[in-house]
This record gives sequence, C-alpha cells and structure tokens, in this order.
Amino acid sequence: MSGDEKSLQERHAPASICFGCGPANERGLRIRSFPQGDVVVADWKPEAWHEAFPGMLSGGITGTLLDCHSNWTAAWHLMKQAGLAEPPCCVTAEYAVQLRRPIPSGETVHLEARVVESKEDRAVIESSLVAGGKVCATCRGTFVAVKPGHPAYHRWG
Amino acid sequence: MSGDEKSLQERHAPASICFGCGPANERGLRIRSFPQGDVVVADWKPEAWHEAFPGMLSGGITGTLLDCHSNWTAAWHLMKQAGLAEPPCCVTAEYAVQLRRPIPSGETVHLEARVVESKEDRAVIESSLVAGGKVCATCRGTFVAVKPGHPAYHRWG
Repeated sequence: MSGDEKSLQERHAPASICFGCGPANERGLRIRSFPQGDVVVADWKPEAWHEAFPGMLSGGITGTLLDCHSNWTAAWHLMKQAGLAEPPCCVTAEYAVQLRRPIPSGETVHLEARVVESKEDRAVIESSLVAGGKVCATCRGTFVAVKPGHPAYHRWG
Repeated sequence: MSGDEKSLQERHAPASICFGCGPANERGLRIRSFPQGDVVVADWKPEAWHEAFPGMLSGGITGTLLDCHSNWTAAWHLMKQAGLAEPPCCVTAEYAVQLRRPIPSGETVHLEARVVESKEDRAVIESSLVAGGKVCATCRGTFVAVKPGHPAYHRWG
C-alpha cells in the first residue's frame, strides 16, 4: 500500500467518477483498495465535512466506504475466478451496515473485506471498519456483475 | 414542503454539521425532512459528484439519504411519543439498503419513511426512495436515542 502502488480503482477504473471510489471524482471519497492475500484492505482519512457531529464520522459515509470497498472486493474476486484481465463492472444489490460504536473522525480508518459466498456473476462480501484499534462498523453486502444493456455496463471509465 | 416551511433539521438542529442532514454543512447533502401525516417525506436533487457513474446516483449516497431521513423520522416519533418539545438526539444502530434498480441522477428523488416498531428509546424505520415514478431503493434501520455520556449527546448543534 505504498504511494507508488496502484489501487484496484486506479488500475482498472482510473476515469471513474463514483462518489465513493472514483479516482476522477475530485469531491468524492476516492478510497484506494488493495488485495492483500485473501482480503482486500484500504486506509482512508476522514475530513471534517464527512462527520455526523464534531469528532465522529457520519454513518452514511461509513456505509459508502464499506459499500464501495466491498464492491471492488467482489469485482476483484469475480475477475480472478473467471480468469479475466479486467474486473467485470459490478453494482450493489444490497448492503447492511452495523454501527457498533462511534467512529472517531480525526484519524485514518482501516477497511477490510472478504468474500464469503460467490456464484458466477455475484459475490457476498463481509467487511469491517477499524478505528482506534476497534471494530467500529461491519457490513454484509451482495454485489452483482452487470451484463450488456444494464446502464452501468462499461461505465466505470 | 414550501420553501418557507422549516424542515425538522432546520427547526431542531440548525447548527448540525452532519454530512447527510446538517443544515450547517456546506458540503453535505442537507436533506430537509417534513412530517406529513404518519410518514416523513423529503425531496432532494442530486448533483454530478453524487453519482456512481454518469447519470446514476451512488449507492452510498442513496444509503446516506435513507439513513439520515430515517434517523429524523425516529427522532420525530420519539419526541411525539414522549411529549417532548425537542427530539432526543438519535444515532443509527444499523441500516440495510436494497438497491432495486438504477437511480437516475438528473431529477429530484423522493424519500418517504415510517415507523414500524418502537420502544421508549428506539425506533425501527422503513423507508424508500422513489425516482422516475418507481421505487428504486428501500431501507430498514434501527435508531436509538442516546443518553448523557454518549459522544453524540447534545451534539446536534
């Protein structure tokens, strides 16, 4: 995860404008996800406008981080599973977030995600957000590779 | 829902800096929620930087809208239930979002939320996002009034 290494997003979707993970969205969260063995990890530093109240991260931003990071975990897994050079374009079918404790916004948070189920065109991903050494939020979501004709198909840029 | 009428957020938490619903967060979504009979409604217009890909709203932003709007629905309900003049400060315990179809980002979206279960200090809220005349996303979440000592207590501004 050095500054020189390209993230999944930078490598496979550099022109994406997604609010959560698009490298080309200057007002977005621009998470950078990196495979690390069986999991995918990311470190991300909140800014003041991402808070719910002073000092604590917004639950919506928390969900956005876990949703996008999990979506990339699914895309990376489906790419490997099918022996593709590029990940299929995936969209979120559903995600559920548990906010277990307040998330301090003054420090970098750590995301970690893993595949828990998968089929040919979809994966179920479990993920967590760790801050201050504690698991503050967890998420479980289902992510689906879209087919030609879906509005998202080949729109990752 | 005229421009003159104050939203729940403007009435009860005008200094809140929450990313999703704080009137004082200039970079936030600034949703404006209004009780309407048994439900709470909001209309919200996306901007380009809220998209997942061109023309479609981000799933994380969608979850943020439904989370914050539902939280205010819970706070409003708990206020009425207890006969209070101001809503208790509520936080999200968990929320689950189903993204049923792509959400067009070029038009105003409509949020609607209702209480489906409640106790003295918490409520379960179901909500939906309608765009283009169709239910595009639904959400179910649990929202809890915090007590003195919680970092969020009396921090709505």
